[in-house]
Amino acid sequence: MATEQTADLEGYDELETRIERITNVGNAAGVLRWDQEVIMPEGGTPARAKQLSTLSSLSHELLTEDRTGELLETLEGDEVSLSGDQKAVVREVRRQYDRATSVPQELVEEISETTSNAHPTWMEAREKDDFSIFEPTLEKLVELKKEYAAHIDPDEDPYAVLFAEYEPYLDLETAESVLEELRDELVPLLEAIDESDADIETDAFAGTFDDDDQEALARDVLDSLGYDWERGRLDTAPHPFSSGTQFDARVTTRFDESDLLGSITSTIHEFGHANYTLGLPDEGYGTPLGEARDLTVHESQSRLWENHIGRSRPFWEHFLPIARERFPELENVTAEEAYQSANQVYDDNLIRVEADELTYHLHIVVRFEIERDLIAGDLDVADVPEAWNDKYEEYLGVRPETDAEGCLQDIHWSHGSFGYFPTYSLGSVLAAQLYAAAEAELGDLEERTRAGEFEDLNDWLREVIHAHGKRYTTPELVEHSTGEPYMAEYFIDYVTTKYGELYDLEAY
Amino acid sequence: MATEQTADLEGYDELETRIERITNVGNAAGVLRWDQEVIMPEGGTPARAKQLSTLSSLSHELLTEDRTGELLETLEGDEVSLSGDQKAVVREVRRQYDRATSVPQELVEEISETTSNAHPTWMEAREKDDFSIFEPTLEKLVELKKEYAAHIDPDEDPYAVLFAEYEPYLDLETAESVLEELRDELVPLLEAIDESDADIETDAFAGTFDDDDQEALARDVLDSLGYDWERGRLDTAPHPFSSGTQFDARVTTRFDESDLLGSITSTIHEFGHANYTLGLPDEGYGTPLGEARDLTVHESQSRLWENHIGRSRPFWEHFLPIARERFPELENVTAEEAYQSANQVYDDNLIRVEADELTYHLHIVVRFEIERDLIAGDLDVADVPEAWNDKYEEYLGVRPETDAEGCLQDIHWSHGSFGYFPTYSLGSVLAAQLYAAAEAELGDLEERTRAGEFEDLNDWLREVIHAHGKRYTTPELVEHSTGEPYMAEYFIDYVTTKYGELYDLEAY
Repeated sequence: MATEQTADLEGYDELETRIERITNVGNAAGVLRWDQEVIMPEGGTPARAKQLSTLSSLSHELLTEDRTGELLETLEGDEVSLSGDQKAVVREVRRQYDRATSVPQELVEEISETTSNAHPTWMEAREKDDFSIFEPTLEKLVELKKEYAAHIDPDEDPYAVLFAEYEPYLDLETAESVLEELRDELVPLLEAIDESDADIETDAFAGTFDDDDQEALARDVLDSLGYDWERGRLDTAPHPFSSGTQFDARVTTRFDESDLLGSITSTIHEFGHANYTLGLPDEGYGTPLGEARDLTVHESQSRLWENHIGRSRPFWEHFLPIARERFPELENVTAEEAYQSANQVYDDNLIRVEADELTYHLHIVVRFEIERDLIAGDLDVADVPEAWNDKYEEYLGVRPETDAEGCLQDIHWSHGSFGYFPTYSLGSVLAAQLYAAAEAELGDLEERTRAGEFEDLNDWLREVIHAHGKRYTTPELVEHSTGEPYMAEYFIDYVTTKYGELYDLEAY
Repeated sequence: MATEQTADLEGYDELETRIERITNVGNAAGVLRWDQEVIMPEGGTPARAKQLSTLSSLSHELLTEDRTGELLETLEGDEVSLSGDQKAVVREVRRQYDRATSVPQELVEEISETTSNAHPTWMEAREKDDFSIFEPTLEKLVELKKEYAAHIDPDEDPYAVLFAEYEPYLDLETAESVLEELRDELVPLLEAIDESDADIETDAFAGTFDDDDQEALARDVLDSLGYDWERGRLDTAPHPFSSGTQFDARVTTRFDESDLLGSITSTIHEFGHANYTLGLPDEGYGTPLGEARDLTVHESQSRLWENHIGRSRPFWEHFLPIARERFPELENVTAEEAYQSANQVYDDNLIRVEADELTYHLHIVVRFEIERDLIAGDLDVADVPEAWNDKYEEYLGVRPETDAEGCLQDIHWSHGSFGYFPTYSLGSVLAAQLYAAAEAELGDLEERTRAGEFEDLNDWLREVIHAHGKRYTTPELVEHSTGEPYMAEYFIDYVTTKYGELYDLEAY
């Protein structure tokens, strides 16, 4: 029996070593992609594509080797007694292994090639405002991804299989009911806001703001929130993102002279992502225990900091004096005016990435409903523009006049990513639930924010979320951190209270 | 017969695909190392070390797989007819394969571990000026590298085997005779300079120069020499280097407010390296045909630009007006004074990296003689400091008073690199031979330099050196580019003429 156990642990160690190598290859690819997005000279593209392709295929080969499957089978056997953490590692590797081995290599390559070519095609279609240019490609991607889903699980709704690539543990029914709830609550809330006579400040950040000073202020923001510069950097990228590991998680942002608020909120958002990564346990590096729990939880971290902190009244009471040091022209702006400007609702906005905190989710609902119907075969690709425009009219009260401003605005489908969009809203919903739990646990978060003290909140997030990596599934992690199942109620409360007060809404 | 040939080409394609993957892994590691040296936050070190270690072991595994050996054997067979380029690829892969497979993995790992630990030990010894701290480590490294050499070729002089890691095709006898020639010519030349009454300007670049303006000037230098910014960048690093591929070859430099000349010459030196890399053929990417011909040739490119261009009189006639735009305080400096200051010989310098163009090679000769004797067992590690100091006294006329300023000054031995130093001098020698050949071919290079026209020289270097990658061995490449075998004569001519004139030496 003792011998048996030793053998099992050896098997576990071997699996861990394999997974560490795969993780290292993946993280190396992450550095290469960061470099490409942020600092690589343009001419480097052809070689970089080849380097990334080699790393990706090596990683796939290491994962799908027969030995990985053998080790998993042994470790899943009844006679093996693993610790809870070891079981979690086996569960996560099994998931990756099953997905990777169930899809034929030719299909993986066909999808990879199709998405490579899809990007320029989508760009061209958007530039020329002509959906018909992108239509055949989108058609092909829908077919390929359905085929892909069928290989992974022929008995499951293919959209649910695709959604699970981005959020493996919240099932699609949960996602669907949360999105329906958002739609049902936000549509009337936005109508009430539209009819409100409240005179809220919208121009606190009007003006032209020097890029270098904006960068200095972005560093102030990161300092203020407690970003660990020993393990991070701030750079600029056309499409801000954050990436890295618990040892080196970098933030990017962008500066537009006419949009000071945009660079501040984008920096805070990416801080939330990087801060989660930095909170993952050092000792878990290389295994799922040292990796973030997928997109819903990741987005909950960025949204919590961006919205619950960065768009709050006490934050602006704290931060406005700091901003005035860089931009004396803000001298006559009050914290209340800054707060109102950071939370104005645009009732005629067509573009997701420019949306406010409320309408954002209706943009997501539109995309979710369309891609779900596309994958189910209930909507033809040719009919996407009309369906898109109809839904915008119905939910947001505005109708796009062009496809460039409509169904061609997002890059995601050209990547073959169907099922990604919902995680943006699911993350926001979780952010509200987490913030409420933190408030219940710590008390008076507003007072701390007003004083610029974010350590308690951050320590709490580290303890209940970051430190666990992928130890728990998403529902388990929500239960562990908040004591309750995942639910939309806290988000609905948050937005109705906040916007009811801001827009002086009687019914809220 | 036709079938036979098709099979051979398939084998060649398979080998090429294998080698491309290995190259991509190596280039990915190059990006990670660049990142680490230039921009990585300090906290990233532990994870980066693991990522690099995984890439290194994957690369080793891919290279040493049995299939690589089988393909090589087939392709080396008499019945296969390969093109000249294909034969060159097979020759280079065979070399790599034989070296990689002949050394046991445990020894590779022991060397790797020992050098990892050697670095901090060497740092500590240098800081405390105490050779005894580093002595046991150096002893171990000498033993391990002798063992390493014995695995590769037990019948060959182990120092020759180690030297061949850095310069595989110029044999050690050639290297040795060139270094002897340098010693025999330079020692009396330096004595003559020491005795010269010539009053050469040394302070043209005295003063304090702002770092940002130095950076702008470094960009001017690169612009002037024709650096391709579409495929490159300029950054700073504590120890300047250049790295990358023909699609993306980056330069680093450093700025010291009291050393303007140092940043200019360092930038030109690294330009020479990057410019070589950028000249490698795009279509050869991934195979030896798209890779640089080892260290002698690489160093010939950096030294040609640094010394034959950057330390020439016409260069300063061209460049001084550009430098004055950034630094108006150079208004009263003449091109002649700048030229003299860039070529002053320091007769009391103990530090290699601060050496002038002449004494530099005596620093190399000292190191070469010591490491050759160490590996041969003719010198005990304990006796290195005394041997070092004696040789400095004999060849350079100065005796280090501390080991920190003596045998502990260089990082190379702590890396386990024995046989690397000679390539610095061998490259300088080749630079002079190439410059003379270019002059013979193109005529009047000085006139072009004075006019800031570097295109003809660069085109010629591209054509005769860069475009060939590893197609030729080093001696073949020298013959191909200059029409003559490798020789020290051009270098000796160059320095005696230049310094004879500068220092008004009768005998020269």
